[in-house]
Amino acid sequence: MSFHGLNTPVVLVDLDIADRNIRRFQNYADAHGLKVRPHIKTHKLPAIAEMQLRAGAIGITCQKLSEAEAMIAGSPEIRDVLITYNILGAEKLKHLKILARKVALSVVADNETVIDGLSSAFASEPTPLRVLVECNTGADRCGVASPEEALLLAHKIAAAPGLVFGGLMTYPPVNGAEAVESFMMQAKARIEASGLAVPVITSGGTPSMMDAAEAPVTTEYRPGTYVYNDRSLVSRGACGWEDCALTVLATVVSVPSSNRAIIDAGSKVLTSDLLGLSGYGHVVGRDDIVIDQLSEEHGRLVADGLIGLNVGDQVRIVPNHACVVSNMVDRLVVVSDGFQQPEIWPVVARGQIV
Amino acid sequence: MSFHGLNTPVVLVDLDIADRNIRRFQNYADAHGLKVRPHIKTHKLPAIAEMQLRAGAIGITCQKLSEAEAMIAGSPEIRDVLITYNILGAEKLKHLKILARKVALSVVADNETVIDGLSSAFASEPTPLRVLVECNTGADRCGVASPEEALLLAHKIAAAPGLVFGGLMTYPPVNGAEAVESFMMQAKARIEASGLAVPVITSGGTPSMMDAAEAPVTTEYRPGTYVYNDRSLVSRGACGWEDCALTVLATVVSVPSSNRAIIDAGSKVLTSDLLGLSGYGHVVGRDDIVIDQLSEEHGRLVADGLIGLNVGDQVRIVPNHACVVSNMVDRLVVVSDGFQQPEIWPVVARGQIV
Repeated sequence: MSFHGLNTPVVLVDLDIADRNIRRFQNYADAHGLKVRPHIKTHKLPAIAEMQLRAGAIGITCQKLSEAEAMIAGSPEIRDVLITYNILGAEKLKHLKILARKVALSVVADNETVIDGLSSAFASEPTPLRVLVECNTGADRCGVASPEEALLLAHKIAAAPGLVFGGLMTYPPVNGAEAVESFMMQAKARIEASGLAVPVITSGGTPSMMDAAEAPVTTEYRPGTYVYNDRSLVSRGACGWEDCALTVLATVVSVPSSNRAIIDAGSKVLTSDLLGLSGYGHVVGRDDIVIDQLSEEHGRLVADGLIGLNVGDQVRIVPNHACVVSNMVDRLVVVSDGFQQPEIWPVVARGQIV
Repeated sequence: MSFHGLNTPVVLVDLDIADRNIRRFQNYADAHGLKVRPHIKTHKLPAIAEMQLRAGAIGITCQKLSEAEAMIAGSPEIRDVLITYNILGAEKLKHLKILARKVALSVVADNETVIDGLSSAFASEPTPLRVLVECNTGADRCGVASPEEALLLAHKIAAAPGLVFGGLMTYPPVNGAEAVESFMMQAKARIEASGLAVPVITSGGTPSMMDAAEAPVTTEYRPGTYVYNDRSLVSRGACGWEDCALTVLATVVSVPSSNRAIIDAGSKVLTSDLLGLSGYGHVVGRDDIVIDQLSEEHGRLVADGLIGLNVGDQVRIVPNHACVVSNMVDRLVVVSDGFQQPEIWPVVARGQIV
């Protein structure tokens, strides 16, 4: 498929690669008795959520309420949504109640203030809200610090009008499956011994997804980036360049010296996310080039030797981090062997921050 | 003015501070006989462009064609636009011709391919397009490398059907006013000696704007960030916190330990731009806090001692880089002593990447 004539910079998604990526993890999860609940932050596209659901996912994960609203409005097939975020504030709770009447909805909490807010919002609702306890298994972001605290919050939820205890959640599992298994086994044992069931234990993250079964306490996994992959995942050995479904097509606008070229994609498309890497993306087919500098609308390509590019040439770039690139554009170009020509899709859940 | 009840995270702009910032540089420029052509990439708001024009700016600068289109559509007061970018490709040239019929339009070029494209598009237009030569005064981004090359391209433009030579442009002037003066004086002398006038010499950048007059060859200056300021400019000593017109209001969603708090603003609002700093923004009134980690929807605040924040508390953050924050949100909240209550403004030129 030719991309010539596309107005650059533009984000391209190869749907066939995405489909292969979706099936690869679904097959692994099926073989290990794990349920899959993909995080849609990577694609923000109802049509790709539908591909994930049709492949066998039990529902989707969203990070913010407004993201869930956009996704649910975008597809009647989305019927089960977990929002992995502490939701608080009158305005958000009002919206949460509306969503809970439309789909099977779960949220998480790691503190009593959030639980109190959820309870007062849902106490008079016809259906209780399912709330999981977020657990810190090493990332030191959100999450209760110990299995004992998880036990306390589980009972707080179970006792709260309008809420039901839904289980345990963690992200990111930076200390690996062993740390997840250890924390979750202890929390589960304590909670069950106290007379409460723990229906779901959910973990996530693409880098460690092919080890997910090494924490057998886990019942559900929430991979996000796996659908597209990116340079960060290639650098971790999680996939190859041929598994990267999202690329940025850019045009060379200047070749100011023999080893340097400037493209029309900067941080407004590729973002400044480094994820521990040096350079801002991989130029497909050109291992000798480093994208050493981005400003908002310019990317600087520097080669070891001759850059060998002319003004007007197009290059494709695998970004460091695919998820954040999806969030930068209102629409992207989708290609597939099944399409007569590239299609333009709106990024329905882009920019949903509240 | 109270921000309680605002659904966070939200970007706040204090219009009175912005107005003071605009006037400060306009006064400096007026005192030194410099024309001001603000870069609108920082605010992306037609109403703030109007404030800049009413204060004395001669026109605006945009970085991409689509950004110029959005701004021109948003305000009838925008009548003179410089796009400081090499524009090429059939689709963009078509749009450029339409814009050139609406306003006084200038663009830049640093190579012959771009000039050839502009000329073929404008050869049969009623009004010629003004083209400036972009010069590299040290940043090694775009720009011709020497005054000799500037001379060659100036003549190439002057000889091209449909184009007129508009002068010389540089950005960013990383080696200071002295380097700008040296390059531009030489280029101007050569071009004038060859029989061509150099009507405009334009430089830009907020960090060095109060030294702009130290390159007296410059006729015009294009500051961008000055309208809002940000943590990067405070750290360079260019302004104080009280001059920062753009802040991000966020809510504490978790306090997992005594020295750590998590807010609902992550890289999807604050961005990963570091601009050489460590940490992702300044928490207003809390010099003891570092925002040491961002994920897409979470910001992690770490204090030297006790964090002293509770779940539900709101904090205001001065971001590292204001311009990129404007690009992350579809709308922002604008406050002013002249307003009865905060107003919600759409960020008209957000996400305009082509």
